[in-house]
Amino acid sequence: MIVVQKYGGSSLADTKKILNVSKKIKKRIENGDKLVVIVSAMGKTTDNLINLAKSLSNNPPLREMDMLLTTGEQISVALLSIALNEMGIKSKSFNAFQLNIRTTEQHTKARIKDIDKQKILEELKENSVIIVTGFQGISDKGDLTTLGRGGSDTSAVAVAAKLGVNCEIYSDVDGIYACDPKIIKGAKKIEFITYDDALELSSLGAKVLHSRAVELAKKYKVKIYCASSFVDKEGTWVVEKIPEWLEQPVVTGTTIENDQTKITINELPKNEMLLESIFEELSKKNINIDMISMYSDYNHFHLSFTVLNALKDHIIDIIKSINSSLNVTYQGPFDKVSVVGVGMKSSTGVAARFFKTIANLGIKPEVVTTSEIKISVLVPKNISKKLLKNLADEFNLRR
Amino acid sequence: MIVVQKYGGSSLADTKKILNVSKKIKKRIENGDKLVVIVSAMGKTTDNLINLAKSLSNNPPLREMDMLLTTGEQISVALLSIALNEMGIKSKSFNAFQLNIRTTEQHTKARIKDIDKQKILEELKENSVIIVTGFQGISDKGDLTTLGRGGSDTSAVAVAAKLGVNCEIYSDVDGIYACDPKIIKGAKKIEFITYDDALELSSLGAKVLHSRAVELAKKYKVKIYCASSFVDKEGTWVVEKIPEWLEQPVVTGTTIENDQTKITINELPKNEMLLESIFEELSKKNINIDMISMYSDYNHFHLSFTVLNALKDHIIDIIKSINSSLNVTYQGPFDKVSVVGVGMKSSTGVAARFFKTIANLGIKPEVVTTSEIKISVLVPKNISKKLLKNLADEFNLRR
Repeated sequence: MIVVQKYGGSSLADTKKILNVSKKIKKRIENGDKLVVIVSAMGKTTDNLINLAKSLSNNPPLREMDMLLTTGEQISVALLSIALNEMGIKSKSFNAFQLNIRTTEQHTKARIKDIDKQKILEELKENSVIIVTGFQGISDKGDLTTLGRGGSDTSAVAVAAKLGVNCEIYSDVDGIYACDPKIIKGAKKIEFITYDDALELSSLGAKVLHSRAVELAKKYKVKIYCASSFVDKEGTWVVEKIPEWLEQPVVTGTTIENDQTKITINELPKNEMLLESIFEELSKKNINIDMISMYSDYNHFHLSFTVLNALKDHIIDIIKSINSSLNVTYQGPFDKVSVVGVGMKSSTGVAARFFKTIANLGIKPEVVTTSEIKISVLVPKNISKKLLKNLADEFNLRR
Repeated sequence: MIVVQKYGGSSLADTKKILNVSKKIKKRIENGDKLVVIVSAMGKTTDNLINLAKSLSNNPPLREMDMLLTTGEQISVALLSIALNEMGIKSKSFNAFQLNIRTTEQHTKARIKDIDKQKILEELKENSVIIVTGFQGISDKGDLTTLGRGGSDTSAVAVAAKLGVNCEIYSDVDGIYACDPKIIKGAKKIEFITYDDALELSSLGAKVLHSRAVELAKKYKVKIYCASSFVDKEGTWVVEKIPEWLEQPVVTGTTIENDQTKITINELPKNEMLLESIFEELSKKNINIDMISMYSDYNHFHLSFTVLNALKDHIIDIIKSINSSLNVTYQGPFDKVSVVGVGMKSSTGVAARFFKTIANLGIKPEVVTTSEIKISVLVPKNISKKLLKNLADEFNLRR
């Protein structure tokens, strides 16, 4: 059976770790599988290259940055192939040119358009393992491109989608947990999780899988298995629907996002164009805003949203630049605590249990937002971890 | 005017040196030239990558070694392009795929077959500088290849040949000297040297230009200028014929090669097949032998040749493996001292002056070999430097 595997940079940080990965691959080959292995750059390679570039320019051409950074994965594929061949496993490494990994033109955040599937299948006839540079592609102009943060996960899912096979993603994290095991003792590991829940959890800061990779997996129904490359523990399957023999929990997980600032614009003249230009300007500057809430009275809109603390001054400047008379204030820092679960759709009472848990701690929520599968609340930093624990208990997220 | 420049690894060893090279390039651009710049990997990058590979395998697949090593030049081109763009010079970097640098299939010692000249010329319309990865190419199969030691010099000359322009090669050496300035005080720098003399001098150990690059330059009549990237001193032109206003010296230079062992096979049965198989076996093992001399008597051949000391045991094993009864002995270590000059062809008396210089030192030459433009002698190590100095004086090679 053909399987796609992806190994992250920390799993390949030095030659000892490369050997460790090689042994894992060897076992699979001996099981009779054929592997397409997507790799990231070794350890801190990408950061080191970025630092070299930064010492030459504060504003390097993005095309040249991609030319620079793509070398990291090429080093990894070659070394892994050398290690595998040394173990007697026929393997061959490929870069974006060789597999014609086509992407859009946007340097540093390109999107994969196509991959030469026939070439992969042909090479798999003669080799047990095909090793592919993650994170990169080439534009129609023939320029090297990179896919942005989490790009290698996306490469792996794209290859798996193209081949119609499963995708195993190995990193230094041994699966997806219902809540952060560093904060909550006995946090449950999730055996099966839906794409939607995984998306919410990863976009909410549980950084196991990059959300772009999960989106792509969802689109092409690629089953993802994520596990640790260091320990032999069962990982987590990310799938369309959890198996029927498993009961879908009402809440799949709970997460915390730190260092949020709440920006408020009070008494905004009731003018949709102004509202639109605020959001447009923030989007142009690539600023993610969250927890938007708004109410209007007879004469005014009152708008608030949350951003990362570090961005608050920048954002206030942007808003003032649109209209210097706007009444912008901020409060914070806060933490945002959420519960996530597709089970909420078919279950009642989650909101009630959520607010009861908040009330029991005497917390006055700053902002609340909800979606079909998520409820979030902005709370003072000093109480957020306690709230997270109580939610984990309330929704049975500990072993 | 379009000019090809090549910068070696020591000229690009860190970002400070990259900035230095960028400033040199900027000056040329301000003069109105357009540049195609070929670069090597930064400093010790290639050696570091080789060491990583060696820690994984003693016998890595050569295809994978090439995949690994070619990243070094890609890092250099990207960083140099970033530095140039930061200075306001429009430049763009290219690798072997992007310029379709076609080579033979022999990994780690491929030869360039073709380069996409049109692409270079097109890109030069929009950019002042095109930066190209040296040392590498792609085979017809689409695999990355490398050109072996001195490969970037060869890349530079190949691009210059294709474009029909001059080739400037910058390194940490400021030109070609008539004799080694580290040994001989006041050694003359050569202003103009013929391809043939440069070939003899570089193959004899004056490691300024790789002989493959000079051969290619000779074939396509590419004028090479070699100089230092660190100091602003006049370098050396390598050309077909030295300019008419300059007198061709009888002897262009003198060189020394250290650590030579003389291997002797006495009383070799008079059998051409045996002789042939000795040379064939050594050639198969990629062993360079030098200063071959042979005489025959009624029943036997007596053969001797020189090799690097380090290889002597290996070579004796090879010869014994052909026929264990062969009478192989060795003597050494010696040094080989040579004088080189195309001027010898049209001048008499060079040999006489050469042997007189040797005789004056009371040296009994171990072996002598001659070609049209070179005389070499194998001498004891303790007298070789003195001989070199006396030859430099005899043939006027000092300032």
